Amino acid sequence: MSTSTSDITLEELRLAARNHALPLEALRHPITPLGLHYLLIHFDIPAVDEQSWRLEVGGRVARPLTLGLEEIKERPSRTVAVTLECAGNGRALISPRAVSQPWLTEAVGTAEWTGTPLAPILEAAGVAPEAVEVVFTGLDRGVQGDVEQAYERSLPLADALRDEVLLAYEINGQPLPPQHGYPLRLVVPGWYGMTHVKWLRSITVVDEPFRGWQQEVSYHLRDSEEDPGRPVTRMLPRSLMIPPGIPDFLSRARFVDAGPCELEGRAWSGWGTIERVEVSADGGRSWGEAILGEAPSEFAWRGWTYEWEAEPGEHELCCRAEDAAGNAQPLSPDWNFDGFCNNAVQRVRVTVS
Amino acid sequence: MSTSTSDITLEELRLAARNHALPLEALRHPITPLGLHYLLIHFDIPAVDEQSWRLEVGGRVARPLTLGLEEIKERPSRTVAVTLECAGNGRALISPRAVSQPWLTEAVGTAEWTGTPLAPILEAAGVAPEAVEVVFTGLDRGVQGDVEQAYERSLPLADALRDEVLLAYEINGQPLPPQHGYPLRLVVPGWYGMTHVKWLRSITVVDEPFRGWQQEVSYHLRDSEEDPGRPVTRMLPRSLMIPPGIPDFLSRARFVDAGPCELEGRAWSGWGTIERVEVSADGGRSWGEAILGEAPSEFAWRGWTYEWEAEPGEHELCCRAEDAAGNAQPLSPDWNFDGFCNNAVQRVRVTVS
Repeated sequence: MSTSTSDITLEELRLAARNHALPLEALRHPITPLGLHYLLIHFDIPAVDEQSWRLEVGGRVARPLTLGLEEIKERPSRTVAVTLECAGNGRALISPRAVSQPWLTEAVGTAEWTGTPLAPILEAAGVAPEAVEVVFTGLDRGVQGDVEQAYERSLPLADALRDEVLLAYEINGQPLPPQHGYPLRLVVPGWYGMTHVKWLRSITVVDEPFRGWQQEVSYHLRDSEEDPGRPVTRMLPRSLMIPPGIPDFLSRARFVDAGPCELEGRAWSGWGTIERVEVSADGGRSWGEAILGEAPSEFAWRGWTYEWEAEPGEHELCCRAEDAAGNAQPLSPDWNFDGFCNNAVQRVRVTVS
Repeated sequence: MSTSTSDITLEELRLAARNHALPLEALRHPITPLGLHYLLIHFDIPAVDEQSWRLEVGGRVARPLTLGLEEIKERPSRTVAVTLECAGNGRALISPRAVSQPWLTEAVGTAEWTGTPLAPILEAAGVAPEAVEVVFTGLDRGVQGDVEQAYERSLPLADALRDEVLLAYEINGQPLPPQHGYPLRLVVPGWYGMTHVKWLRSITVVDEPFRGWQQEVSYHLRDSEEDPGRPVTRMLPRSLMIPPGIPDFLSRARFVDAGPCELEGRAWSGWGTIERVEVSADGGRSWGEAILGEAPSEFAWRGWTYEWEAEPGEHELCCRAEDAAGNAQPLSPDWNFDGFCNNAVQRVRVTVS
């Protein structure tokens, strides 16, 4: 279902209330404080009893495993800062838009995830030669697209075996809170958020491509409902700025004092290092180069700053990023049926006086 | 500005994205985990440097004080569980509705706040005999109702001096995160959320009623824009249930298995203990009594359960609470110009099969 009106339906509002966006001023933190990271919860946050909870590792493996949380924590651990973005980020700014979670631009966050690498667990289980994919199943259940389902997604075996893929049990040095996947979630640095299955209950090695609803129907770039489309995988580059000055409560329009104004933001891509961020103060007609800063890790956003001389009047500030693979942000959204991967440049209206 | 259409504007969506609601299944926790508590941030979360931050206590006092965070933490501390609800909760379900933060029913949370009582600080400063109110000013600034302002609200002196009023620096045993008012916020148990000023920078004793925008214009129950109205103060009773069964992603409609189904929720009031919660499975035509459970404190919500025999078909579940002061929830909203204090009963549609 899609709509061309600019008004938002009550169904979309219900989703927007549940699913939290990053307030843009929180971009000032290289690691997003707990409670400000974006959240997309497809169904309900499941109630989990840590004592009875187990992770089942099975399917096409020589030695199926059943692991408790303590066993997982006793394995080698790694902490890595990872930027996560929802594949539907920007959906509400596409016209006509798909009716689903109506993200604007703020479905992102960067956390330090601590967990144990997945590959050694798969090796311990003994992946069969005929294996092609690994399916990750969560405890969260519901109905989507008229299909009752547990939330589950797969990864090609080669991607599942990458060094940086973690089974995470901590965020920012604390046990996962319920909304981030307690007690265990998948973290696949570089990929859009739907990949990072929360509330993990099983990992299943399979010998043919997984055809679950979230894999085969959802998360594709499609021209129409009938189009099989291309799967959504890694994050396209995006940059966001902290809106400068002070806001109007209702419109969120900005008021900035004339004079030097340092613009600040972050940029990321799942396809390669961010190599350039540009800023425009005239709605994208002319651009200046931002100064790039550090990234908390190779899988996390990179800070940037830009010295803007704010002159009295109305301005539309924009920023755009380009990655080492040559991907750049478009000035306007690339339409697709479900409203995925809209990485068009952010536009911030400011009044300078 | 108000609207009678059921569609939500883009401005309202922007606010709904920033301002986080409690996902209703989080009602299962007596103390809301960090990151699930509701958030209403009028302007931007301010950046605060703890080293240079000071709290100024002044106005009509004998001995103005300037306190650093460490000095405040060295004072006697108290931890209390407090239920906070936004005064605009339920606004989007009123017709015609005010265009503002479009809350449905979930702008609530209960946290354990740790801080130091306010009254001894005011006593140390020496409140002048002519004092009538205490003004609390935050570091957050913006424009609302065409007025540039810092967020500030006052309390009558007698309310400010109540034992339970805290200057809080921890939530759930952790330092306040930015979104909850780091480094210090006011906590006034029993009152709607606008009272609990975040990012406190000053406390000013005054000898006439405070007339700031958030005090005199906003947060009133008005019949029209011209009506001075009655000020919003303490929370009216409300009960919420955890929607049973599993959800449809888009509509959030629920699917429940036929048979015994334990409904569970929480109820609160700022006017007195919750003395009764009733549940209806037929949209409010007939009611049964819920079993009341514990409250984490006298200022926090009370748990309740209700054994429902779910029979196949469509049902509308409702719950309503009544407090010791005799306040009860209405079946439909009491309209007012700004959409405050809508504590009409929650309605949850379920399909049983």
